[in-house]
Amino acid sequence: MPILNVELGVRSYPIHIGNGLLGRPELIAPHVAGHQVMVVTNETVAPLYLDAVLHSLRDFECHQVVLPDGEQYKTLEVLNTIFDALMGARCERTTTIVALGGGVVGDMAGFAAACYQRGVPFIQIPTTLLAQVDSSVGGKTGVNHPLGKNMIGAFHQPCAVIADTDTLSTLEDRQLSAGAAEVVKYGLIRDLDFCDWLDEHLEALLNRDAQALAHAIERSCRNKAEIVAADERESGVRALLNLGHTFGHAIETGIGYGAWLHGEAVGVGMLMAADLSMRMGWLTAADVQRVENLVDKAQLPTRSPAQMDYERFVDLMSVDKKAQRGKIRLVLLQAIGAAVLSDDYDPALMRETIDAHRAIPMVS
Amino acid sequence: MPILNVELGVRSYPIHIGNGLLGRPELIAPHVAGHQVMVVTNETVAPLYLDAVLHSLRDFECHQVVLPDGEQYKTLEVLNTIFDALMGARCERTTTIVALGGGVVGDMAGFAAACYQRGVPFIQIPTTLLAQVDSSVGGKTGVNHPLGKNMIGAFHQPCAVIADTDTLSTLEDRQLSAGAAEVVKYGLIRDLDFCDWLDEHLEALLNRDAQALAHAIERSCRNKAEIVAADERESGVRALLNLGHTFGHAIETGIGYGAWLHGEAVGVGMLMAADLSMRMGWLTAADVQRVENLVDKAQLPTRSPAQMDYERFVDLMSVDKKAQRGKIRLVLLQAIGAAVLSDDYDPALMRETIDAHRAIPMVS
Repeated sequence: MPILNVELGVRSYPIHIGNGLLGRPELIAPHVAGHQVMVVTNETVAPLYLDAVLHSLRDFECHQVVLPDGEQYKTLEVLNTIFDALMGARCERTTTIVALGGGVVGDMAGFAAACYQRGVPFIQIPTTLLAQVDSSVGGKTGVNHPLGKNMIGAFHQPCAVIADTDTLSTLEDRQLSAGAAEVVKYGLIRDLDFCDWLDEHLEALLNRDAQALAHAIERSCRNKAEIVAADERESGVRALLNLGHTFGHAIETGIGYGAWLHGEAVGVGMLMAADLSMRMGWLTAADVQRVENLVDKAQLPTRSPAQMDYERFVDLMSVDKKAQRGKIRLVLLQAIGAAVLSDDYDPALMRETIDAHRAIPMVS
Repeated sequence: MPILNVELGVRSYPIHIGNGLLGRPELIAPHVAGHQVMVVTNETVAPLYLDAVLHSLRDFECHQVVLPDGEQYKTLEVLNTIFDALMGARCERTTTIVALGGGVVGDMAGFAAACYQRGVPFIQIPTTLLAQVDSSVGGKTGVNHPLGKNMIGAFHQPCAVIADTDTLSTLEDRQLSAGAAEVVKYGLIRDLDFCDWLDEHLEALLNRDAQALAHAIERSCRNKAEIVAADERESGVRALLNLGHTFGHAIETGIGYGAWLHGEAVGVGMLMAADLSMRMGWLTAADVQRVENLVDKAQLPTRSPAQMDYERFVDLMSVDKKAQRGKIRLVLLQAIGAAVLSDDYDPALMRETIDAHRAIPMVS
């Protein structure tokens, strides 16, 4: 079983990757700080995996809070139900919060852990591919604001991440594809060898080939761990992890949270970033075709929603966290495997990219 | 004009204390990170001091949000109106939040700064004695939960604190007394000389003698700065700043936020801590009388609300952030000027203390 380490000095932590991990108390228990645990999960995941996790935590006083499932519930209001549960169970400063679920559960449980009594420990047990390869690693936590994704949050590192690949067996195909978007991202921004591997093995991964999944998760987490170790608070290189995310967040906010999965919006967002990079003379048409093939093979959208025209995109993207003085900064590709953060692009080219990737509006 | 420094490495910051400071842009402007400022204030303070602050910030793009006034508005819901204002004004990661007001404004603006885009800079401009001597220094931010004070929050240090003593001229007497509670606290926990000074000068301070106020604010901030520098995240000595606060928070929560001012609850809370310390054999009756004289001279309550009986106190105190395994930990006094954190007290003595200080219930 691979164990990776996120190297952050006193905040370093292990990422365990493998099958059958939920049933191994020795992986979880050493990271529980006090005698109380609050498991935060959602209505989809609870019936599947909550019992197993509670069994592994049987030596502790366990409480649980079950959230509704979906990005549209990643709000301050739903966050408050976690605080209600923590207060109701008289949880203390040493209570450990366990996030059992996908990216939304992890982001919210992590943010609750960052804020409850000004910070309690937490453990990530991601149950979706997206959470296993991306959102559960690196300490970004938070909720959405109606006008912008992830606008309210904190950096709060987990004490451990336990990625049990068995949990992917119950994942919907659509969720698996959404996770594949973040896997492809690592290849595109900094790992050309991984891109080559994905050209060959992405279909096997989508067919849930155990070896392909295990390799992709480990390789993704290794990339993420290296970046986070180099730039915990995103003052530099960490921003490159946002390839496709500025376009993607605009789509998610613009059409309403939960309509598209995060990974779906990132999928077409990466293609748009590649397309703009080509228009700037950095990528070749063949490079962009390669990105489109990966996105398409992952069964992710290659067109943005019809209602998202240029003005709507720009309006939403200008509130992105990377924006400076209203100027949108984008992660672009100087080559496949070599991303760069830039605000030095021609808005006319951006308009071409957005127009070229917009689904044809239906005539009613 | 005294300038103290809170020594926290890269997070160090100055505390400016004096009169006429609001009108001096050179104190504020250097701490504004970007080109945008969001001033957070309340409906009482805005008509008095907002114009002066905006004038000192005239070189920046300024926005403002005016909160309702009172502890009962220190909630997640009202916090969200700050986020709405920040998003509505398209504030960015470099936007500086300025807290202009008392403890509630400072705690909420600071918490908004901790969370907005996972952290933006902020400046504290405290306009109450309580905020100038205590809550605006040290980086504790947050909101209340219906079941417990300050249960949701973050440590987020300001870039600067500007305590303009002129703002105290418009402060209600009741608010001045509430601030005096925190001033007395510093003497009791660690500064016997200051206690001696307070025995002599507390009345002058309450009469708004400018010299007495300036001395008390500087001495209080110096004590606070030393403690925060030694223990930023309250893993040790910082907890001693909570003298009277465990009893006090229970009162505030128990009778409803805003019914008593924070400083009023802390006033009787300190007296109760002194009384329990005497019952444990640490203080003499004369010591307790000295504490009661100070609390009384500050025109603070020396009796807790009639509805707060032993069971209610203990129920509410057991959710205090210092509690461990349900055991209430209290700041007690081994001598005047020498506080200690302890859970080693006899519950029967605690009951005696609570009973002895409870206002007589009215017979209806």
